[in-house]
Amino acid sequence: MSHWYEEAAPEADEDMRAAAIARQNSLTKPRGALGRLEHVAVQMSAIQRTLEPHANKALIAVFAGDHGVTTEDISAYPQTVTSEMVRNFANGGAAISVLAKSMGVDFTVVNVGTVYALEDLPNVQDLRVGAGTQNMCVTEAMSLEQCEEALAVGRDIIDQAGDIDVFIGGEMGIGNSTAAAALAVAHTRLSATAMVGRGTGISDQVLAKKAAVVTRAMSRHLPHMKNGVEVLRRIGGYEINALAGAYIRAAQRGIVVLVDGYICTAAAISAVKINPSIRPWLFFSHCSAEPGHSRLLNKLEAEPLLQLDMRLGEGTGAALALPIMQAACRLQIEMASFEQAGVSRGND
Amino acid sequence: MSHWYEEAAPEADEDMRAAAIARQNSLTKPRGALGRLEHVAVQMSAIQRTLEPHANKALIAVFAGDHGVTTEDISAYPQTVTSEMVRNFANGGAAISVLAKSMGVDFTVVNVGTVYALEDLPNVQDLRVGAGTQNMCVTEAMSLEQCEEALAVGRDIIDQAGDIDVFIGGEMGIGNSTAAAALAVAHTRLSATAMVGRGTGISDQVLAKKAAVVTRAMSRHLPHMKNGVEVLRRIGGYEINALAGAYIRAAQRGIVVLVDGYICTAAAISAVKINPSIRPWLFFSHCSAEPGHSRLLNKLEAEPLLQLDMRLGEGTGAALALPIMQAACRLQIEMASFEQAGVSRGND
Repeated sequence: MSHWYEEAAPEADEDMRAAAIARQNSLTKPRGALGRLEHVAVQMSAIQRTLEPHANKALIAVFAGDHGVTTEDISAYPQTVTSEMVRNFANGGAAISVLAKSMGVDFTVVNVGTVYALEDLPNVQDLRVGAGTQNMCVTEAMSLEQCEEALAVGRDIIDQAGDIDVFIGGEMGIGNSTAAAALAVAHTRLSATAMVGRGTGISDQVLAKKAAVVTRAMSRHLPHMKNGVEVLRRIGGYEINALAGAYIRAAQRGIVVLVDGYICTAAAISAVKINPSIRPWLFFSHCSAEPGHSRLLNKLEAEPLLQLDMRLGEGTGAALALPIMQAACRLQIEMASFEQAGVSRGND
Repeated sequence: MSHWYEEAAPEADEDMRAAAIARQNSLTKPRGALGRLEHVAVQMSAIQRTLEPHANKALIAVFAGDHGVTTEDISAYPQTVTSEMVRNFANGGAAISVLAKSMGVDFTVVNVGTVYALEDLPNVQDLRVGAGTQNMCVTEAMSLEQCEEALAVGRDIIDQAGDIDVFIGGEMGIGNSTAAAALAVAHTRLSATAMVGRGTGISDQVLAKKAAVVTRAMSRHLPHMKNGVEVLRRIGGYEINALAGAYIRAAQRGIVVLVDGYICTAAAISAVKINPSIRPWLFFSHCSAEPGHSRLLNKLEAEPLLQLDMRLGEGTGAALALPIMQAACRLQIEMASFEQAGVSRGND
């Protein structure tokens, strides 16, 4: 039986890629002088199958969920903060709320699994799959049914999004940088020590404990990770799995994805494991201060657009990269060619 | 006799800096999680003397000028391209024209010294100080009068700009990465080889020649560089000197400066040499693909915001950094504190 998340995303068009490169080389600038922006515009041309790539209409969706692994005492913040921050998103006081509003980008919050049910909140969709995950050190984070349900939450957010060009996912979940580190180990087979970081700001002592927790979880689960969904079921999280589902559906629908920080990148590599055809649709917005993030980006052969020493999550890094993606598109569309502008060519 | 360009810029307010840091630490995010954005917002608070820093209204001015050193055959493009690109700026076909329009930022072009006079062009101010500079390998680039006049062109652009928060300077001038390399050598005393780069895209052979040209120019001028103005007179350029004048005046008027790439950074370090009080007002937007740029930024102890492998100039890197500066301000102003949002504090 085939699952929705295994259906192929549209392929990149290599003829269009070549045409986009030719167009870039015809524009009034030295060849390659727009650097990464040219890569972005050319890749967008190839996947959107147009010389006029577009990133005008975006959706930012922040997924929230709690993590059983917090009982191992690996976070600087109490678990209640996940729910408290959902209220902060709703009330406009969180960083991503401020960015979405100031940029005029549609913004929604999805509760995929806080420990406690929350009251009705403006702009928050209550789609809880469970009351937080189980502690991955002692059992699977969730059942297969819950895993599939969380993936479907992400899918449905994309299906309800209407006509968007770009999807930006964010996440909130105390403990989720531990889950992300476990996913990073699962997909790279690098050590837990290489993949854990300070998250919201833990001490050296707690950092060592966090690495030990990931190592324990991996020794339990690694022998049983027979496919990508099983990885997410065992060591993922409700919000992480919803992100993976959203990334897969976005690519299937021809929507460009701007991946945020470490946790989103862990969701993205998990999604690629489930469905490798989505990879051309993923753009990586920034490299965060979490040391495992650059290793994970390397594994994905991804070139992040920004390095701003950020480590907040919520989709904030991706939101900051959106204007750069939009500029890359505009430049390819609107710049004059040497011929049009009557500018002499060099010998570059 | 004291000159306008030696008048001090307003100092940073250290009490306001401390208050801004305290505010950042009160906001609903782990301490320091917004990385560079926090540094930008705090520095802007200190110089603008407010907890609500602002970067809303910006001006982009591109200065154009030709360089006598092009007779040494060190560029991939013919000298006519400077004038041709001025027309392209005017007609909206250049990269910076596209960015300014799409971002809704005021944009003007200033001809400070193309070799040939240009016809009247929309949005181009004809303020030519000379018909290109002299070849710095054989004589001074310009007279002291011309140097002062070019500085004043930049000053006047700022004085006519009305009520702006941010100034972005750009430049166009075939040969000006050679002048920038010479300025970089003058201000760092590093080797010419360390400071020359491929500019618009020259071969290994031309790159070696470019280094030799800079070395020849420096051996002629270095013994006579008794002050910052003399450096700009001997090895600067009309557009570079106008940039330096604009940076100085912007800081004097309390306008934040977003410095663009290698050539603008060479103008900025020259301006700081003339008037060190302006340094707190300078923000460095990006590190370009020119190898000397990172060395120059190090000398300035500057942390650039972007690294996008760009090497175009025109102010394009600074234009791309503007939304990030604006976001940094908005976040400090609009995010909720832990107390306001009822979010539990961690032990970070």
